[in-house]
Amino acid sequence: MIERRKTRTVMKGDVPVGSEHPVSVQTMTKVDTADVETSVDEIRRLTAAGAEIVRVSVPGAKAAMAIAKIKPRVNVPIVADIHFSPALALKAIEAGADCIRINPGNIGKHVDAIREICRRCRNKGISMRIGGNEGSIMDREGIEVVEHDTDPVVKMVDEVLRNCELLEGEGFRDIVVSVKSHDPLETIRAYTLIAGQCDYPLHIGVTHAGTIEQATIKTATAFGALLSRGIGDTIRVSITGDPADEVRVGREILQCLGLKKRGLEVYACPSCGRADVDVMKLTAEVEEVVKDLALDVRVAVMGCEVNGPGEAAQADIGIAAGRGWGYIMQKGRILEKVKADDLAGSLKTHILRMKDEGLIVASKEA
Amino acid sequence: MIERRKTRTVMKGDVPVGSEHPVSVQTMTKVDTADVETSVDEIRRLTAAGAEIVRVSVPGAKAAMAIAKIKPRVNVPIVADIHFSPALALKAIEAGADCIRINPGNIGKHVDAIREICRRCRNKGISMRIGGNEGSIMDREGIEVVEHDTDPVVKMVDEVLRNCELLEGEGFRDIVVSVKSHDPLETIRAYTLIAGQCDYPLHIGVTHAGTIEQATIKTATAFGALLSRGIGDTIRVSITGDPADEVRVGREILQCLGLKKRGLEVYACPSCGRADVDVMKLTAEVEEVVKDLALDVRVAVMGCEVNGPGEAAQADIGIAAGRGWGYIMQKGRILEKVKADDLAGSLKTHILRMKDEGLIVASKEA
Repeated sequence: MIERRKTRTVMKGDVPVGSEHPVSVQTMTKVDTADVETSVDEIRRLTAAGAEIVRVSVPGAKAAMAIAKIKPRVNVPIVADIHFSPALALKAIEAGADCIRINPGNIGKHVDAIREICRRCRNKGISMRIGGNEGSIMDREGIEVVEHDTDPVVKMVDEVLRNCELLEGEGFRDIVVSVKSHDPLETIRAYTLIAGQCDYPLHIGVTHAGTIEQATIKTATAFGALLSRGIGDTIRVSITGDPADEVRVGREILQCLGLKKRGLEVYACPSCGRADVDVMKLTAEVEEVVKDLALDVRVAVMGCEVNGPGEAAQADIGIAAGRGWGYIMQKGRILEKVKADDLAGSLKTHILRMKDEGLIVASKEA
Repeated sequence: MIERRKTRTVMKGDVPVGSEHPVSVQTMTKVDTADVETSVDEIRRLTAAGAEIVRVSVPGAKAAMAIAKIKPRVNVPIVADIHFSPALALKAIEAGADCIRINPGNIGKHVDAIREICRRCRNKGISMRIGGNEGSIMDREGIEVVEHDTDPVVKMVDEVLRNCELLEGEGFRDIVVSVKSHDPLETIRAYTLIAGQCDYPLHIGVTHAGTIEQATIKTATAFGALLSRGIGDTIRVSITGDPADEVRVGREILQCLGLKKRGLEVYACPSCGRADVDVMKLTAEVEEVVKDLALDVRVAVMGCEVNGPGEAAQADIGIAAGRGWGYIMQKGRILEKVKADDLAGSLKTHILRMKDEGLIVASKEA
């Protein structure tokens, strides 16, 4: 129904971003990236909730290097959020981040360093996001630019495009662009303006949007305006609160516009050292029993009885499996403990019960 | 910033609706309209929250006639919501409703009666809303039309426009139109379609939108798409819950788009038999002390110590005045009891305190 603005395709890990692909939902962890265990649990929880790309903050070298340990244990592209320091960007690239987000304003004085970052990204097939925020515009010497007679939206868009040109000078075009404002109307203006001036996919968002109700209103209003015009290829809802809420609200906005189909989704955690069961085999069994149900339901399959329950809590229903047995979970509540061989069958029984109770509805075409 | 779609101006009581006037916020009471006391209290509560137009359901003759008793005690235009019965529409007109809402689908078999309704409206200077809902389309004999090969959005728009023509045949053009769907994307399509086919002001809304989070997401997404294109002259957010939430969310969506200025607003209840003080005099005093504060604040002045506190609860701060004294209220909480002569001054002191506490912010240009 909605005709997307034509863009090139840029990969964030294995997720393609651009007009030829579904609009993806991002979020950002709020835990210490350097704390690997906590980060892995948090990323899995957000992925179970439906996050398709997860950003982590990289405030220091320890956080940058933690990405190398986090990556193998999650199955979602990881974006490294870099402020101020080109050295941290290089470390995050080295650690295997799938995308490097830089703010053109605050590393604007490091032109040579940015060239080096994009060469390294190109060599490793890593994409970049050039993410401007209104108010964070600085000159090339890193001095904050305050020009009251210049439209701040035009200034932000120009700054971001100048940074893209810098990367293009290195033959680098795997760029996703964002131009966020805290004000929904300014956000609409900024993205509408930049949409006509490049063919890069756009990451859209309203920044500093506030607590959940305020952020939901601001973001849905701006996204309705933009997405209905085909502008926006990947989204983040910024909420002062739980990032799982960002994912849920983001998905619902896309569903409102027919940009995300409801239906059956099975999310499996990646098999890891902590997994007590063959997650891939269990997932295949689950997919087999639910595939013909034609229901709008999100199923999580987690191969860990320690963190699995918490991670599966964001799905409608899920399995947190231990060795030889597993829990069936409904919206974070443990329903029963079941033998491994009976898990998939029991899951189906509970899904059908939830359907009878009206907690799960039949899927229809978007 | 947003260029409104050009429309004629239609009055709902003393509130002009159309592109030359601010987009107004509506809601609908959920109490029994026939219960006059409860309806008056509810309407004042919603008006204190910022409702600029209030609709009441008219399921029977008692409700229609209650409008005559409610009207003198509230100072907001009252829209009578009529389903099925032309006789009830005539009674509501007689009782002094400011606008009659009819659903073209379900009184479609009463063509002569509709002509009579619009003649009476014209004679009394009352406007009409022709409000279609997807799914409520019926043929002229009142039989539900189910044509699976016809686009339901096109069908709804055609039905509404045919009903407008019926009224135009009587020389009646004081019409506001709505074409709601439960689906945000269908809602966007319907309003975009009808916007190009008439110059009537549009009342926009997503119907059956659900509980507050779901309704907020659906409505803000659809309104962002429509209002950013200049489509929509009066809005209603439909929430399964408190209509005061509908008002708050609606106002915030408009503020997101620069369609409603924040700033100082003083809401005074109409003086009524129950009022123990001179509300107009007190309101003038309050306006005098707050007018230069340049703050985003909503102040309620209620001349009644019985229902005033409940009605003022939706404002940031308010006065519920009795004989010779009054309560200063903050967000529904009684702060102190003050002598009548000191009320305005005390209110100002509390507003400045709330500003210091960050509960009220300085207003800025929209």
